[in-house]
Amino acid sequence: MYAELREKGEKARQAARKLAFLSTAVKDAALEAIATGLETQQEEILAANEQDLADGRAAGLSEAMLDRLLLTPERLNGMASDVRRVAALPDPVGEVFEMRTLPNGLQVGKKRVPIGVLGVIYESRPNVTVDIAVLALKSGNAVILRGGKEARRSNQALARLVVDAITGVGVPEGAVQLIETPDRELVRDMLRANEYIDLIIPRGGAGLHHFAIENATIPVVTGGIGVCHTYVDRAADLQKAVEIAYNAKVQRPTVCNALDTLLVHRDVAPKFLPMIAQRWREAGVEMRCDPFALEILGSAPDVKPATDEDFGREWLSLVASVKVVNNLDEAMDHIYRYGSGHSEAIVTEDYGAAMRFLNEVDAAVVFVNASTRFTDGGQFGLGAEVAISTQRLHARGPMGLKELTTYKWIVFGTGQVRE
Amino acid sequence: MYAELREKGEKARQAARKLAFLSTAVKDAALEAIATGLETQQEEILAANEQDLADGRAAGLSEAMLDRLLLTPERLNGMASDVRRVAALPDPVGEVFEMRTLPNGLQVGKKRVPIGVLGVIYESRPNVTVDIAVLALKSGNAVILRGGKEARRSNQALARLVVDAITGVGVPEGAVQLIETPDRELVRDMLRANEYIDLIIPRGGAGLHHFAIENATIPVVTGGIGVCHTYVDRAADLQKAVEIAYNAKVQRPTVCNALDTLLVHRDVAPKFLPMIAQRWREAGVEMRCDPFALEILGSAPDVKPATDEDFGREWLSLVASVKVVNNLDEAMDHIYRYGSGHSEAIVTEDYGAAMRFLNEVDAAVVFVNASTRFTDGGQFGLGAEVAISTQRLHARGPMGLKELTTYKWIVFGTGQVRE
Repeated sequence: MYAELREKGEKARQAARKLAFLSTAVKDAALEAIATGLETQQEEILAANEQDLADGRAAGLSEAMLDRLLLTPERLNGMASDVRRVAALPDPVGEVFEMRTLPNGLQVGKKRVPIGVLGVIYESRPNVTVDIAVLALKSGNAVILRGGKEARRSNQALARLVVDAITGVGVPEGAVQLIETPDRELVRDMLRANEYIDLIIPRGGAGLHHFAIENATIPVVTGGIGVCHTYVDRAADLQKAVEIAYNAKVQRPTVCNALDTLLVHRDVAPKFLPMIAQRWREAGVEMRCDPFALEILGSAPDVKPATDEDFGREWLSLVASVKVVNNLDEAMDHIYRYGSGHSEAIVTEDYGAAMRFLNEVDAAVVFVNASTRFTDGGQFGLGAEVAISTQRLHARGPMGLKELTTYKWIVFGTGQVRE
Repeated sequence: MYAELREKGEKARQAARKLAFLSTAVKDAALEAIATGLETQQEEILAANEQDLADGRAAGLSEAMLDRLLLTPERLNGMASDVRRVAALPDPVGEVFEMRTLPNGLQVGKKRVPIGVLGVIYESRPNVTVDIAVLALKSGNAVILRGGKEARRSNQALARLVVDAITGVGVPEGAVQLIETPDRELVRDMLRANEYIDLIIPRGGAGLHHFAIENATIPVVTGGIGVCHTYVDRAADLQKAVEIAYNAKVQRPTVCNALDTLLVHRDVAPKFLPMIAQRWREAGVEMRCDPFALEILGSAPDVKPATDEDFGREWLSLVASVKVVNNLDEAMDHIYRYGSGHSEAIVTEDYGAAMRFLNEVDAAVVFVNASTRFTDGGQFGLGAEVAISTQRLHARGPMGLKELTTYKWIVFGTGQVRE
């Protein structure tokens, strides 16, 4: 194991023991210190970011990637506001729940506690360094961060700011640590450092997620891959359906909760498909259509026949696959086969269809008459999110503060023994 | 991948889709049919068990192991009662919770759903076949069972009984399946069958747990290894402490929640240690003592000096290590260092000491003034348990029906789109 990982792992473990019962006041003071730092110590961070950007340009990063990397005074101020929003959320740690008294007089219940040490592996965006550190702190977890190489200097500067801010107010040393060794082999070590890390959260593309699942002996929460469907039912309000499908595809096409496939009931397809095609056309959306949809829309530069690979594909761009289905069951079968368990929506005014879709479709988030773009910790009122889980254990969908906790059973006795 | 695993995996997946919204009435009828079968079709099972026992004797299994393997009419009737107790529990599936209305009018909440397909790998005791099948069914999960080779014929007979009973009442085919191929290599395949299995639960010794963690790409819930401490505080009621320590060590020494190490405050050690030594002596408990405890008790055939390895060890027998500590902090430090995160207890009448122990000791279950033997799904009112988790994610401690579920987010909209 890399010496840096062992050293930081031991420190994190020690810190976690104290963080677990650090007072809310100290944690919130630490968050406020971070927010203030982001507003008042921008020079060093912007200088580091400048260097990352220069390296990125030299390495030929795309404009989109450079934009993800970019920090500005405005973006740093925005990050400070986000930190204060997390500080304002209730502390999830310490809640006691499901407490009851057993016939023998034992009082048995659960108490919410931090998970312990989080290991977070992420790519490009340097603001993730602050987001994760802040969510970890507020939920009483220590965190070991491993950022992407493109944002190396920016991450270092931000981590330094965080560490300086929080050590001044009583947070134990080792609560937030950034891995400096750039070797990719270290990530493999990190995935197997069971003695130091309790949960691995990979934030990045499918490659990173598969690498984590394949190599980790530590529990992993994976997510982020979203093949999202919107089904326009026979009983849909077509105007609502247009707005929802437009928003789900166009409002921010590069993210996991954007629409990938539009399913349309055959009874409304002749009317609905031209409506959405016109709106999407204005936004530059390309449609990959099954034969029925193609027959309705007719071929055009932005209307093409779909291949088999166009279904079950996460586009992350202004492309959508389109399929006409015979009924609700066929729509749900398609989602069962091609969905990634992220976000699925039905548009309908039929109560029975809405309830069947909600009950029978299995995904982290199932919507009736709303855009899948709402799958987001901020939108759901969690304040922020550390990831969007598409696995089934522990947490599904947006993971906020509560999802970074676990519980222990607590038992109050008066001398009970088992017979 | 083994053809048997692929075939049963596909069937389980299909079954899981239907099981997820099977009515409580059908599930309970299936459980009743199993209970009736256990009472009325004992001949075939007892004959199969007879053969396993004969093989076991020929292979030189210990009397203890043969007893674990043994089925009798009384034990089968007991299993039937256990099944009916699970049937009487509330169905965990379908509960809607944390529902709230967002400022934009979206109603967002969580709905409890089954995990999907469970893979359970277990050893020796054939009753586990029925226990797990019943808990899986009631919680709406499909299950693939892989039992130990010693109980092969008994497991087959029990699985046949279960399958016959439940297919008659409307449970989909493939809900409960037993792997027949005896190859150990199949277990490795099973741990990596992500397309078919959502959660692996190993039930057995430390070797099986490590093998699962090392090889699984599917999430694993591990547990069962319990290095359990009871700390007798300065302010303990010593009579209570004797009863609790006696019960925790003697009532059933071969299980994970039995006492392994006794920690005693130095102020009460001179009085308390002879008291517990006398009671333990009657039960044949051997004590491995640190120098201070040894000085108090004096050497004897059943009082020996402890080596370093005697702390942090799960005895599973009538042996206990004993250590005198200077104060509560030293006791908690010892537990932090040597505990396995299973069950820890303090005996004290001091409110402050009790609360500090509850807050600061991190284990699946933390007790004040009670025997650690209570860590058990049945004792905690969960009806039964599929395992005792000592990991931090998803579930800690006894896992009952609710712990075999997860949730999905459900969102009721009226046409909302994201700005």
